[in-house]
Amino acid sequence: MRIAGVIERYRAFMPVQDNTRVISLNEGSTPLIQAYKLSAAIHPKLEIWLKYEGLNPTGSFKDRGMTMAITKAVEDGFKVVMCASTGNTSASAAAYAARAGIKCAVLIPEGKIALGKLSQAMVHGAKVIQIKGNFDEALTLVRQICSKYPICLVNSINPFRIEGQKSGAFEIVDAFDGVAPDFQAMPVGNAGNITAYWKGYKEYKAAGKAANLPRMLGFQAAGSAPIVLGHPVAEPMTYATAIRIGNPASWKTAEEARDESNGVIGMVTDHQIKEAYKLLARTEGVFVEPASAASVAGIIKLSQNGFFDNVEPLYGEMIRLVCILTGHGLKDPDSAIAAAEQPATLEPNEEAILEVLGMLEPAFA
Amino acid sequence: MRIAGVIERYRAFMPVQDNTRVISLNEGSTPLIQAYKLSAAIHPKLEIWLKYEGLNPTGSFKDRGMTMAITKAVEDGFKVVMCASTGNTSASAAAYAARAGIKCAVLIPEGKIALGKLSQAMVHGAKVIQIKGNFDEALTLVRQICSKYPICLVNSINPFRIEGQKSGAFEIVDAFDGVAPDFQAMPVGNAGNITAYWKGYKEYKAAGKAANLPRMLGFQAAGSAPIVLGHPVAEPMTYATAIRIGNPASWKTAEEARDESNGVIGMVTDHQIKEAYKLLARTEGVFVEPASAASVAGIIKLSQNGFFDNVEPLYGEMIRLVCILTGHGLKDPDSAIAAAEQPATLEPNEEAILEVLGMLEPAFA
Repeated sequence: MRIAGVIERYRAFMPVQDNTRVISLNEGSTPLIQAYKLSAAIHPKLEIWLKYEGLNPTGSFKDRGMTMAITKAVEDGFKVVMCASTGNTSASAAAYAARAGIKCAVLIPEGKIALGKLSQAMVHGAKVIQIKGNFDEALTLVRQICSKYPICLVNSINPFRIEGQKSGAFEIVDAFDGVAPDFQAMPVGNAGNITAYWKGYKEYKAAGKAANLPRMLGFQAAGSAPIVLGHPVAEPMTYATAIRIGNPASWKTAEEARDESNGVIGMVTDHQIKEAYKLLARTEGVFVEPASAASVAGIIKLSQNGFFDNVEPLYGEMIRLVCILTGHGLKDPDSAIAAAEQPATLEPNEEAILEVLGMLEPAFA
Repeated sequence: MRIAGVIERYRAFMPVQDNTRVISLNEGSTPLIQAYKLSAAIHPKLEIWLKYEGLNPTGSFKDRGMTMAITKAVEDGFKVVMCASTGNTSASAAAYAARAGIKCAVLIPEGKIALGKLSQAMVHGAKVIQIKGNFDEALTLVRQICSKYPICLVNSINPFRIEGQKSGAFEIVDAFDGVAPDFQAMPVGNAGNITAYWKGYKEYKAAGKAANLPRMLGFQAAGSAPIVLGHPVAEPMTYATAIRIGNPASWKTAEEARDESNGVIGMVTDHQIKEAYKLLARTEGVFVEPASAASVAGIIKLSQNGFFDNVEPLYGEMIRLVCILTGHGLKDPDSAIAAAEQPATLEPNEEAILEVLGMLEPAFA
């Protein structure tokens, strides 16, 4: 049997009709990887799993919501979709619009975006328009245009995005045969994803498909932590660009997820994010974009503060925790190069190479 | 139930013991996407499916073989693996070595490699060594060193790579409930992958898990087509760098796959590859690295030459064909930017934007 996309697999939970034409790239079904070494390094009672959302078709979790948003846009007769975006949203919108055979327009603030980050929107044939203005102006324009013209807005204010994204929670519960983990940790930027996961867990429990609910742990970057600080941040700053958001669209529902689940929304520094980013790549072999590492950085911080010491696991001996890794590291190769040791340059000579490898004594020679 | 990696899922077909410690990043289980528009555009009798191998953990099909190679390296007691590589192999080797907790060394020819392409090997903590010499010298050194020292060679001459890679064939047959497609199309560079798929199909049929075998279609780039030309190419040239190989390691077994399956190994020009690359991204929403598009380019060429006109499908009305798309487009963002329309720059003004979108007449206004 072929593995289908998230709408087909969770059709009863999705706002579609029997005859809805589903626009899908077989998103979802992403790996859930047990992180043995990371768990041991962080806390003796933690059993950490990594939900590797970077293996969605366009390299980020956005595809789960975009399949739903584009499916509804097509059902509602739209021939054009539009978003203001600088990265993952535009890549996903452009790919699904191409798949559907409709147009996609992406508005970006001029000069603020590396051309490489737009390679996906461009290759999928989206109309990419640079606006002489900032991101807020671009988003305002998109909202104005979509309110007047037959163009479907697919930024995160589109409610169908959340409906698709909640499928991540279903997959996690299914992977553990009907049991939600004790904790779920994730980065928080615009806060749509934590909203979606919490909605998914609650719906699955109400349907009798999940025995329990997890406690939700969300992490913002310290320079961009409006929910933690309790007020919008006018000029959000962080190296983790995907969560550099000063006034999250889903602020209120993120707080609900935190409070209803007895969870935490905390913050981590850029230094902590970078260290977690390297740790994931070097100890588990999992390459993420910087924002994704905020979840691991946050767990490390909580653990160091004794947060997990007195937690009683729901089942068994270990505290089960799933980290959502939202995007693939290939989205941002420059960060990888900056974080790594630079290549050595050597003569083509065995001994020189072995010396660099610290292997001058041949054990089997 | 959690989706496991390829060794666990196809354990009976893999060279492992009951107690083998499996090193996995939950590779495989990649999407098989039906390409409705591409099929209609290429031939009225073709039903084309895309096996999107770019959604393996490190973004290419190499992970299927590397899980097996690193698992065996660890089982055999190696603490270091090594390869000469410029791209996908080094990324995969570095990630799986990190996962295993062993060292990885990558030898590259100095100055021939864009630093971006090595971001994966670097971030996973591989020792990247630039050699003052060309690629052949690097590979020769790797072979010499691995023959004398306790270092496991994980270039494609490592026989376990093929064993893991054959799992792609199993997944395709499983997706179609025990039936292999009429045809499978794929790019051919070093020819290990066509060798692996054919081995997989034959083993699955022998085990009673596949009702039939496909005809194998392989495509080389015209400037790098030793198998088609019948002799090595001293200075292979093609824009599709992942298949720029003048003297394939698995030449003979690729010819066997072609001949035993009544297949074809043909060649396509760089122009044809680029056109197929754009077609995939713009009509199906699937972003691949350039080499992956050689399979689609090859099918288009065969179809134009009447190849499919008199083919009788094994089952039903349509000729079922699976294209292997070997790597993700994010591996090579520069090719995407070069292939696309550049962004327009506009004042933040509704009318200017709508004019560019060709929508000055508001249908719903």
